[in-house]
Amino acid sequence: MERKSAYRIAVLGATGAVGRAMIQTLERRNFPIESLKLLASERSAHQTLTYNGSPVEVEVAKPESFEDIDVALFSAGASASQIFAPEAVKRGAVVIDNSSAYRMDKNVPLVVPEVNPHALDGHQGIIANPNCSTIQLMVALNALREFGLEHVFISTYQAVSGMGQKAVDALKDEITAWSKTGKVKSTIFPLASQDVHYPMAFNVLPQCDVFLDNGYTKEEMKLVNESRKILEIPGLLVSPTAVRVPVMNGHAESVAVRFRDAVTPEMAREKMRAAENLVVVDEPSQYLYPHPQMAENTGDTYVGRIRQDLADPNTLLFFVVADNLLKGAAWNAVQIAETLIARA
Amino acid sequence: MERKSAYRIAVLGATGAVGRAMIQTLERRNFPIESLKLLASERSAHQTLTYNGSPVEVEVAKPESFEDIDVALFSAGASASQIFAPEAVKRGAVVIDNSSAYRMDKNVPLVVPEVNPHALDGHQGIIANPNCSTIQLMVALNALREFGLEHVFISTYQAVSGMGQKAVDALKDEITAWSKTGKVKSTIFPLASQDVHYPMAFNVLPQCDVFLDNGYTKEEMKLVNESRKILEIPGLLVSPTAVRVPVMNGHAESVAVRFRDAVTPEMAREKMRAAENLVVVDEPSQYLYPHPQMAENTGDTYVGRIRQDLADPNTLLFFVVADNLLKGAAWNAVQIAETLIARA
Repeated sequence: MERKSAYRIAVLGATGAVGRAMIQTLERRNFPIESLKLLASERSAHQTLTYNGSPVEVEVAKPESFEDIDVALFSAGASASQIFAPEAVKRGAVVIDNSSAYRMDKNVPLVVPEVNPHALDGHQGIIANPNCSTIQLMVALNALREFGLEHVFISTYQAVSGMGQKAVDALKDEITAWSKTGKVKSTIFPLASQDVHYPMAFNVLPQCDVFLDNGYTKEEMKLVNESRKILEIPGLLVSPTAVRVPVMNGHAESVAVRFRDAVTPEMAREKMRAAENLVVVDEPSQYLYPHPQMAENTGDTYVGRIRQDLADPNTLLFFVVADNLLKGAAWNAVQIAETLIARA
Repeated sequence: MERKSAYRIAVLGATGAVGRAMIQTLERRNFPIESLKLLASERSAHQTLTYNGSPVEVEVAKPESFEDIDVALFSAGASASQIFAPEAVKRGAVVIDNSSAYRMDKNVPLVVPEVNPHALDGHQGIIANPNCSTIQLMVALNALREFGLEHVFISTYQAVSGMGQKAVDALKDEITAWSKTGKVKSTIFPLASQDVHYPMAFNVLPQCDVFLDNGYTKEEMKLVNESRKILEIPGLLVSPTAVRVPVMNGHAESVAVRFRDAVTPEMAREKMRAAENLVVVDEPSQYLYPHPQMAENTGDTYVGRIRQDLADPNTLLFFVVADNLLKGAAWNAVQIAETLIARA
């Protein structure tokens, strides 16, 4: 990407939870913006959002919307990405796509800037932003890669905002109904599009996204496949369980990693403290460890409860938390744009 | 224990969440009762509870309270157990103790009736009820023991009722405050007795009970030590992470088990379907899997999401759920009493 003093930015899916977080992140990181175009589908457009205090009308996305755009941040779902990303690239924009559409495409870099910024070199116009639960795991694992990552067991505690603003509203609705009646009701969980729904309030559901034929969910397989691609370890073993919990915002992950070498918690803490944008919060005697509300509204990844497996000196256990809308989506996307500029 | 047509029962800690569940379980399982004495501390006594529709006054517990008692169900904390269990045994009662006081005592059987009923033989008056998160894990693992249990990775999703009725009330209080103000507040989580508290509403906290010097919590070490004792596998490797979630009732567990032998999900399902009081709910195509609200108010253990590790044919992953106040405490205690009678 060409170096300029300011850039012409478009946000596709601007009215969604991640789209709004993208706009806020551009503000918060003081991104050098010449112009900002907000785009959405016919159904969601014609609202007015604000950027740095100024109103910006949301326009209906069309192929021509991407004329004269330097960077387009996409968060409108995989089918919108498949329609508009080639159109945007054809018109000279770089697309940073938060959907799953291109993540496993071998011609598309899948990037966590703290982990594999070099993957941006030679991109062909589309750069994929990884899945939320993958990004925070990558920031933590990358800090430990020199010990030889072999096998990762991960159980997630995922916030409902990962399903979008409608899921946040649905959980609020369930809680309000419970406050009035003392009874739980079902709304849209675990997936709006399926026939069967369970209560999410005061419950946990071991289903994030749809089931695949192998008995794993799509969310679980993203943890496997995206981790291998980002870390560039095709043989990395990942054993994932993805679970939705009644948290508005902030994903947590219970992780056990077997390394090639023996690793003490102190060795791990030292590497993790030195890692960029990874905050070690690990003082059990002071009751300090990460939890979702600690991470909320920040772009950092938090790690704690770092301890050696009781049986295996080559295995460490820890707990990782990040804001899934920020580091897990919008913040990482804007960081990708910044990294592209820095490497230009 | 002597065979009789009906028994003289005492419940110590009758006013607590588990104590009340013990009374309900005696009713629901139609336990043969000649007389029921409800006991509590001076602070909690003098209330009137009901058993099968009849009022029963809660008396202050004294050593003499256990005269003429056949079976005493204890759930009043470890220090109360240490004071009253020897007194009750001296007076001829069998004590079934839900506290942690005697669980690891080598002269005390630690029993899950579906798993190790034989451990009751030759007891010396005290029988320990395992910790809630251990019991449901045992029911699931025992079904698979012939494949050779080697290493268990477990991450828990534990309900607040495991901390007692005051924690249920505290979470309700947090939710009510949030409904009115839109803000979360801290009450007593993760532990009433410590200085630092975090919000539990819309949050997850990787701390159940106090931290030990090895960086694990007491709850995590219970999973390790109690599992080894109940399964009678001293070398069983257990890698535990215990996490509190904003669920009123029902613990969930994400489990990965490495076996000596290769095991397919179908082999595991067949063994689990044949196991007593273990319900296999595992039809992802029908969106069927266990979740806490499915288990609530039942004495069964539920298992689903049974799948082979993507990398290791000797490792299976699954998700286990049970009502922590029932199978995890009161129900298991009453089952122990029934098993004692059946084996008398």
